[in-house]
Amino acid sequence: MSELQVEKQRVRWWSRYWIKKIVRHPLFSNTVIVMILLNAILVGLETYPQIANKHHTLFYIMDQCILAVFTIELGLRLLSEKPFYRFFQDPWNVFDFFLVVSGYVFVSAHFMTVFRVLRIIRVLRAISTIPSLRRLVEALILTIPTLGNISLLLGLFFYIFAVTGTILFANASPEYFGSLHQSFLTLFQMVTLEAWASDIMRPLLEKVPWAWIYFVLFIMMGTFVILNLFVGIIVNKVENIEDTKVDDLYREVHLLRLEIAELKKLIHQAKE
Amino acid sequence: MSELQVEKQRVRWWSRYWIKKIVRHPLFSNTVIVMILLNAILVGLETYPQIANKHHTLFYIMDQCILAVFTIELGLRLLSEKPFYRFFQDPWNVFDFFLVVSGYVFVSAHFMTVFRVLRIIRVLRAISTIPSLRRLVEALILTIPTLGNISLLLGLFFYIFAVTGTILFANASPEYFGSLHQSFLTLFQMVTLEAWASDIMRPLLEKVPWAWIYFVLFIMMGTFVILNLFVGIIVNKVENIEDTKVDDLYREVHLLRLEIAELKKLIHQAKE
Amino acid sequence: MSELQVEKQRVRWWSRYWIKKIVRHPLFSNTVIVMILLNAILVGLETYPQIANKHHTLFYIMDQCILAVFTIELGLRLLSEKPFYRFFQDPWNVFDFFLVVSGYVFVSAHFMTVFRVLRIIRVLRAISTIPSLRRLVEALILTIPTLGNISLLLGLFFYIFAVTGTILFANASPEYFGSLHQSFLTLFQMVTLEAWASDIMRPLLEKVPWAWIYFVLFIMMGTFVILNLFVGIIVNKVENIEDTKVDDLYREVHLLRLEIAELKKLIHQAKE
Amino acid sequence: MSELQVEKQRVRWWSRYWIKKIVRHPLFSNTVIVMILLNAILVGLETYPQIANKHHTLFYIMDQCILAVFTIELGLRLLSEKPFYRFFQDPWNVFDFFLVVSGYVFVSAHFMTVFRVLRIIRVLRAISTIPSLRRLVEALILTIPTLGNISLLLGLFFYIFAVTGTILFANASPEYFGSLHQSFLTLFQMVTLEAWASDIMRPLLEKVPWAWIYFVLFIMMGTFVILNLFVGIIVNKVENIEDTKVDDLYREVHLLRLEIAELKKLIHQAKE
Repeated sequence: MSELQVEKQRVRWWSRYWIKKIVRHPLFSNTVIVMILLNAILVGLETYPQIANKHHTLFYIMDQCILAVFTIELGLRLLSEKPFYRFFQDPWNVFDFFLVVSGYVFVSAHFMTVFRVLRIIRVLRAISTIPSLRRLVEALILTIPTLGNISLLLGLFFYIFAVTGTILFANASPEYFGSLHQSFLTLFQMVTLEAWASDIMRPLLEKVPWAWIYFVLFIMMGTFVILNLFVGIIVNKVENIEDTKVDDLYREVHLLRLEIAELKKLIHQAKE
Repeated sequence: MSELQVEKQRVRWWSRYWIKKIVRHPLFSNTVIVMILLNAILVGLETYPQIANKHHTLFYIMDQCILAVFTIELGLRLLSEKPFYRFFQDPWNVFDFFLVVSGYVFVSAHFMTVFRVLRIIRVLRAISTIPSLRRLVEALILTIPTLGNISLLLGLFFYIFAVTGTILFANASPEYFGSLHQSFLTLFQMVTLEAWASDIMRPLLEKVPWAWIYFVLFIMMGTFVILNLFVGIIVNKVENIEDTKVDDLYREVHLLRLEIAELKKLIHQAKE
Repeated sequence: MSELQVEKQRVRWWSRYWIKKIVRHPLFSNTVIVMILLNAILVGLETYPQIANKHHTLFYIMDQCILAVFTIELGLRLLSEKPFYRFFQDPWNVFDFFLVVSGYVFVSAHFMTVFRVLRIIRVLRAISTIPSLRRLVEALILTIPTLGNISLLLGLFFYIFAVTGTILFANASPEYFGSLHQSFLTLFQMVTLEAWASDIMRPLLEKVPWAWIYFVLFIMMGTFVILNLFVGIIVNKVENIEDTKVDDLYREVHLLRLEIAELKKLIHQAKE
Repeated sequence: MSELQVEKQRVRWWSRYWIKKIVRHPLFSNTVIVMILLNAILVGLETYPQIANKHHTLFYIMDQCILAVFTIELGLRLLSEKPFYRFFQDPWNVFDFFLVVSGYVFVSAHFMTVFRVLRIIRVLRAISTIPSLRRLVEALILTIPTLGNISLLLGLFFYIFAVTGTILFANASPEYFGSLHQSFLTLFQMVTLEAWASDIMRPLLEKVPWAWIYFVLFIMMGTFVILNLFVGIIVNKVENIEDTKVDDLYREVHLLRLEIAELKKLIHQAKE
């Protein structure tokens, strides 16, 4: 290796060392949190037209500054990883990356609304930056797969009722069951028990007197399945607690048995 | 036995062997699942009149194909059982049988709507075909009997309130309490807390000022019983978890006691 | 004692013996259940004016028969107890007594509606007659005192909000907050989340723009307390299960300790 | 120290001794509870204008009496503490202090409504005076921090949806999404599932056909997070029960191990 290469290597090593030190400094993540807060307040204030119109340039400059800080922060974190693509192995980093990059894409006046919505979504970075929130969201996401089968059943159940509703009531209640997707939305509304009887069923009953069978069946099955989904989450969590608690005890009792076996051996020896 | 009979016997044995092999092949149930999916998509698409009218013949042919596949599948599964009636001992098979057979019954134009509804209900075969869904539905059905008594109480409670409501409010609120069955539907709506006050109670209060007693009593008792039904499911499941966990521990501790008893015997022997 | 008195004593003893035998016979309670069912069906049918008017006399006769059977049943059960007042020590008997006696009180045409309502309430006798329902209702009633404090808190909370609501919104929303009792009913409606915003808050907001503070505060506190009431029931039941399970284990482990203490004594003896 | 000072000291000591004795007497707190009850009834009756106008002076005098009693009670409790500021170390005392002091502040006719509301809030003193209620409220308050993270997440989630809703629907639905604070109130209403579809979404759908995405997403995420908040409370309480139960068992089993270790030592000694 030539001396120049060695020197280059050293510089690279040193720079990565310093970048890592900066990135892991509490001040670093605190700055990001402050920026997220500022971003949130800015986008909140911008929803008031009187404020947004008066200080339009100021808002634009501040937003550009925040975006710049986010870009620098992301760049530093990207550089701190040895092969830079390792950065993208953490899904949270990918999440951050897209939130920041999207800031550069939709700037054209045409997508102004989309752009403003994306800017508020950037506040979600708070989740990846505050460790306790991150753990909570990870825990919430982990409960989803345990509900896989019951969701599949719910989907099946929704589909059958949506098609049946469309076939039976498309003419009598076009507003709610006019097409398959309208029926889906109506069923979703019904499963939250919102105005299912007063707005949806009762006007329909005047035209189709036996329609109550469909509604009562759906409400009973829907709430029963949703309720079981809910019970599933509770029971699953209680089970986890039990597992750890009782396993500890089990291990302790097992150790006891081993010791008694040893005792027995000792007495046998004493007897001989 | 004549040679012909022996030969016949052999052929029958061989054919059953092969049918069993086919029926148990993963490809077999996968084909059924694909057919169920196709059936679901078809019936879904048919709810859009513009699509249904244009490709009417295509839909009809595809539906006949799916029905044919289902019939063949059912026939093979029926033949794979030794005395064919053993097939009907599994309630899921009976379920499948009715879903398929119903496809042949209501084909006349008169029952067109019923026929179309039956075709979407055929999608429920997914439950009997996908093992995890099957287990889930079996588990859900098993929770129903544990709720037997509380359902009986709820039924009694509903009946008393329905009759009372009809006696007291039939004239003041004919829309909601006009007859016993209307009262039942109204009480069902009220137990879901949907528009119970805004639509049902408040207009009635103008005619019958003391009606709030009936409503408040029903809402309080209804939600209390429903809530206990819900608590029952949770507590029942938690109890089951506990049972298995604690029973393991109990067995371990019991084994410990046995070993200590043995120890005692050993020491007694040593003393002598 | 004269011979006559002895004879009287014997007759009384024998009659009580036979009455007890009758009362405890399964056929006895089954007859009562059939009567309750018949009573329920009759009162249900009577709510349909066309049926009630046509068979008016028939209904009257059947009702009198049922009442007679109930009276005889109650009389026998009363006589089967040694000092007859012991019968009233069981609250369920008092419950039965009042249900039957009320059948004789309000027969005058003036109280016709009250009388008919009381006749359907008589169906509640099913609870005292079917043992499993009886145990369930006793269990439900037993959960109420464990909720004593939280109910007291809820009452306090309701009272404060009712008075405050009446003071603040009596003029702006006379329909919902016109007087203290109207406010109570409105708060009860709000705690079930029924139309609290659409019907009650939003129209009020136009007159009293800051009224949302009152509503949001009430909904948040109300649902939080109700939720804790609910959690209380679940946790209380889970605790009971745990108690019995873990207590068994604890006893087993304790026995183990006693045996080991004995072992120690044995070894000490062996050493000497 | 001069004799006078000693005498003064003694008087002070004796007076504090007697004040403490009075303050801790059950009659003392019972008087306060009666006063609170009286205060509650008075303010309740005053909401009926016909009663309030007729007995205006009477109400005023009684209110002044209650306030006087409360003041004396607070004064005595304040004097019973050694350095009087120790009284304010208990947050419940600070709570009582503000409730009583506020009675003197807003007496001017201008703040009449505020004054009347404060008088009913004074009923909250029942919580600090009745020990079981006090413990319950303390327990309820203690569950709040365990929900810290999930509340933070809920806040973030609300903020993002409020800003997005205002950006997207401010023109289409000014009543519900006209400004950021209106959007917040609308989202709060939606999270209670009240009229979210019938009043808020459906009218908006006519102008913004894709708005259902926003609503379905919010309802699904909102109920999922709220549900987890609820599950969190249940699981947290069940965990606490388990902890105490299982810890007892663990300790017992641990003691067992110690005894067995001792046994082993004994046998070793016996062998030698």
